[in-house]
Amino acid sequence: MTGLETVAVIGLGLIGGSVARDLASRGARVLAADPAEASMAQAIAAGVVVHRLEPDLRGVAEADAVVVAVPVPAAASVLELLAAQPRGRIRLVTDVGSTKRSVLAAAVRAGLGDCFVGAHPMAGHHRSGWEASGGDTFRGATVYLCRTPATRDDAFEAADALWRWLGARPEPIDGAAHDARLALASHLPQAAASALGRVLAAAGIAPARLGPGGRDSTRLAGSPAALWSGIMADNADELVAGIDRLRAELAVLRDALARCDEAAARTWLEQAAEWHEGPARNLPS
Amino acid sequence: MTGLETVAVIGLGLIGGSVARDLASRGARVLAADPAEASMAQAIAAGVVVHRLEPDLRGVAEADAVVVAVPVPAAASVLELLAAQPRGRIRLVTDVGSTKRSVLAAAVRAGLGDCFVGAHPMAGHHRSGWEASGGDTFRGATVYLCRTPATRDDAFEAADALWRWLGARPEPIDGAAHDARLALASHLPQAAASALGRVLAAAGIAPARLGPGGRDSTRLAGSPAALWSGIMADNADELVAGIDRLRAELAVLRDALARCDEAAARTWLEQAAEWHEGPARNLPS
Repeated sequence: MTGLETVAVIGLGLIGGSVARDLASRGARVLAADPAEASMAQAIAAGVVVHRLEPDLRGVAEADAVVVAVPVPAAASVLELLAAQPRGRIRLVTDVGSTKRSVLAAAVRAGLGDCFVGAHPMAGHHRSGWEASGGDTFRGATVYLCRTPATRDDAFEAADALWRWLGARPEPIDGAAHDARLALASHLPQAAASALGRVLAAAGIAPARLGPGGRDSTRLAGSPAALWSGIMADNADELVAGIDRLRAELAVLRDALARCDEAAARTWLEQAAEWHEGPARNLPS
Repeated sequence: MTGLETVAVIGLGLIGGSVARDLASRGARVLAADPAEASMAQAIAAGVVVHRLEPDLRGVAEADAVVVAVPVPAAASVLELLAAQPRGRIRLVTDVGSTKRSVLAAAVRAGLGDCFVGAHPMAGHHRSGWEASGGDTFRGATVYLCRTPATRDDAFEAADALWRWLGARPEPIDGAAHDARLALASHLPQAAASALGRVLAAAGIAPARLGPGGRDSTRLAGSPAALWSGIMADNADELVAGIDRLRAELAVLRDALARCDEAAARTWLEQAAEWHEGPARNLPS
């Protein structure tokens, strides 16, 4: 039991829709708001959402928790709308965005710092929208949880309980540490896949002409551009540093090949393979 | 019917092993050579290989065709060993390497230009060795076929028939065009995945901590380093040019983010997404 009987989900895209489906299937009463008429209608028809909130979020105070699941640049204005409503039953406001520093700051600015817990589930894929959402999306997935300087323990415990209820594995992390880590673990792979796609596009090589490895490496190039430009802009300082590191690594390989130094290229590749295989590879058998 | 009753497979790794399995399952008599005792023993025990060739390839002339499936840098010396044997029944010598210019030149140098067809099946994955080989690996896969300046039509037709027999889709291409294309479509994704892996390794982020997208983008980092350093060194000129293009694309995104130009970042991502979704996306509905 999480004590979260009624949950408001703001935004019914891939992640918000999946959260709403999981909550409903576990017996929660789901209120929702989404500017897309079709998504709202489908979510209500599917029996996932029982009540549609107005755009000003009037009535949201009936919910025990609010999950803000909108694109990163839109989160601050949703938090302001929430702050303008009575607090009512709400004891947790959380989100699902891919960056955390800016949303934590926005929650504090909006006066919601005490009940806000930034969350980032490491789930989802390169499709978007309610149609792409599904049940049991979070089972086994890491979900990063970030406090504001003012977050109360009961709010944090509610966020932890909410995500465990959906099968995810909560992991507390500082917001700045989260953004530095995700710049490398998530935003940089997106940049690399899109850059590869652009090189291949310029050469007239279609995705269907790639082998299995090329397809894996460029899968993220199909991600929604508007969503990702928002994430990247929000985490620009960390991602710029990450791109610089990636370009520097590529330059090492490039220079080894340009001077016909196969041994250096091999060592470079070996070190990456050792990372991929993990420490177990080096254990005595 | 391909008229290829007996086929010699030199090298029983991922690709050679898979070719041997497919040939045997279709009724061909498979001779083989591999310096790895264990692979040979397993291939014979599995009923895939009926006869083991000596290291000097004595007796290979009993075969109608020879498939050279060794790492790229080793192909030239295998072709020299073949050239030292009587031609016998052999009407096709082919290979499976990831680069084609050097092996075509080596075949000509060895005096095998008339019967040689360079082949590159777009199949396989980041594991290697006989243990990783399997049946029906090539069904539906493109296989590039490259002539030397001296390749006879009957040899080319035999290569075409061999690969169609295994379910692949042969596509003739000039050797230099192949290497330019594959530098971008295959070798550059390998370089990008390994570079990402190196950045993540330096930051102490393990593969298991990545989301689904990060895992896809770095899967190739686990590829065998020795195999890939040989491929990259053999195609160094084209791959260096490809890395330069990839670094230039990354610099465009980096600079857009550094100057807080989200619109430019979005356009950059959109163009990659359009490539990924293909021309159908832009057709009127």
